[in-house]
Amino acid sequence: MQRYFIDQVMEKDIPVQVSGADFHHMVRVMRMKAGDQVWLVDLNEKVAQAVIQEVLEDKVILAVSSFQEKTSEMPVEITVASGLPKGDKLDLVVQKGTELGATEFLLFQAERSVSKWDAKKVHKKIERLERIAKEAAEQSHRGRIPFLRYYSSLKALLESEGQSYDFVVCAYEESAKQGECSSLAQVFQDMPSGSRLLVIFGPEGGVSGQEVAELKGLEAIFAGLGPRILRTETAPLYLLSAASFYFELSGKSENE
Amino acid sequence: MQRYFIDQVMEKDIPVQVSGADFHHMVRVMRMKAGDQVWLVDLNEKVAQAVIQEVLEDKVILAVSSFQEKTSEMPVEITVASGLPKGDKLDLVVQKGTELGATEFLLFQAERSVSKWDAKKVHKKIERLERIAKEAAEQSHRGRIPFLRYYSSLKALLESEGQSYDFVVCAYEESAKQGECSSLAQVFQDMPSGSRLLVIFGPEGGVSGQEVAELKGLEAIFAGLGPRILRTETAPLYLLSAASFYFELSGKSENE
Repeated sequence: MQRYFIDQVMEKDIPVQVSGADFHHMVRVMRMKAGDQVWLVDLNEKVAQAVIQEVLEDKVILAVSSFQEKTSEMPVEITVASGLPKGDKLDLVVQKGTELGATEFLLFQAERSVSKWDAKKVHKKIERLERIAKEAAEQSHRGRIPFLRYYSSLKALLESEGQSYDFVVCAYEESAKQGECSSLAQVFQDMPSGSRLLVIFGPEGGVSGQEVAELKGLEAIFAGLGPRILRTETAPLYLLSAASFYFELSGKSENE
Repeated sequence: MQRYFIDQVMEKDIPVQVSGADFHHMVRVMRMKAGDQVWLVDLNEKVAQAVIQEVLEDKVILAVSSFQEKTSEMPVEITVASGLPKGDKLDLVVQKGTELGATEFLLFQAERSVSKWDAKKVHKKIERLERIAKEAAEQSHRGRIPFLRYYSSLKALLESEGQSYDFVVCAYEESAKQGECSSLAQVFQDMPSGSRLLVIFGPEGGVSGQEVAELKGLEAIFAGLGPRILRTETAPLYLLSAASFYFELSGKSENE
C-alpha cells in the first residue's frame, strides 16, 4: 500500500485533504479512486491507514481509518555525516541509509574530498538527494523523512551542529587497523533511548590530520568498524545495520 | 599496498612465483619493480607481506617477508543465497557483501524472480560476479575470495547444499511485519566459532508459499530484520553487518 508523508497533523474523525505533488501521484500516477487505501504519515510521525472518500479537481479527501501503534523508527537518532565521496556514491548512502533508519544526513566538503560542490549547485544537489530520501522513506515504511544539509567543511559542520548531539563518533580506519573493536559497542551501550548520535565518515582516503584534531576537540570517539577495510559508502550502512541489530533485534538495549 | 590471491601455499623462506593475470597486473598495470611490496594471500588464507625480487619475461619472483598474525575473516562462515533480483542489483550484493565478510554467494532463480538467467549465459554471469568479488576481496583486505554458484531453483539449491550448514535462516518480510525481532539474535547466540550459516533472501516480492514450505522442510528459521522494509539488495548487507558487529565488535561472542 502506498505511503505519503503529509505536512499536516492528523486527528481521528477529521478528514484529510491532500493536494500538490501527492495529489498528482495518487490520482495521475497511481490512478486511485474513492475507496482506495493508502498510508499517511503526519508531521508528528503518526502513521495511519486512510481511505479515499472523494477525488476532486485538485485535491483528494481521505478519511483516517486507523492509527498504527508500533513505530518503524529506531529508539535512538543517528545522523550520518559523510565527507563528499567520488561519483554518485551519495545516492547509495542516502537511499540505503534511509532504509536502514538514519535520522539525518550531513554532507561536508572534506579536506580529502576529490569531488567538490559548486556553491551555486548545492541547492539542486540537496534537492535531488531529498527526493531519493523521500522515496526510500516511503518504500521502507519510515515514520519520517531524513533531513539533509550541506557544509563547506567539517569545521563548519562541527561548529554549527557539534553541540546538539549526545555522542560523536568518527569511523576511523586507523582504529580498525590497530585492532580497535569495542568502542562502537560501548557507545551503543551508553546510549539511552532518545539519545542522539552523530557519526562522521571520511571520503576516500579518510579524514585528514587536521580534521582528526577538530574531532578530538569535540571529544569524539574514534571507532573501528571491524577488521575489513570498508569503502566510504559501505561504512555508514554497516553502522546503521549494527545499530538496528543492537537497538531493535538483540534485546540488549535495556538502558531505556 | 596491493593484495593478490595466489593458487599456492606459501612457506617461510621459499620464494613465490606469480604469473598469469596477477603478473600482468603487477608489472603491466601497476608497473611494479624489484623492491616493491605487496600482500599475498595463499590457498590456506594465510596472508603475508612479500617483496618483489625479480621481474622476468612472464613471471615475478617474490620473497615472503612476514606473515600476518590476525585474520580479517569472521569467526563464523556466512553464505548469502539471493533469489535473482531485478537489474544489476547482484553487483551491489556481491561487492558490498564481500567487503562485509560473506563466505559464499549462492544465486537462485526464485519463483518470484522477474529476472531469468539463460542457461547458456550462467557461466559468463558467474564469471563477471567472480571478478567483482575478487576485486572487493582485495580492496577490503579479505583472507579469501567468496565462492559463487548458481541454482535453477531454491529446491535445487537446498537439495544440493542444505545439509552442509549448521544453521539455515530465511530473511522473511512477514516475520518482520508481525514484529518478530529476536530470532536472528538467538541464531547468532547459538553459533559457535567456525559454524556455518546459510541465509536465504527472496527477490523483489519475497519467497513464495512453495519456497517457504521447502524451507520449513529443512527446519529453517524465519527471521525479521527490523521494523523497516528493506529492499532485496539491502537485506544481505544488513545481515552481514549485524553479524560482524555481534561476532567481531560486541564481545558478546563468548561461546567459542
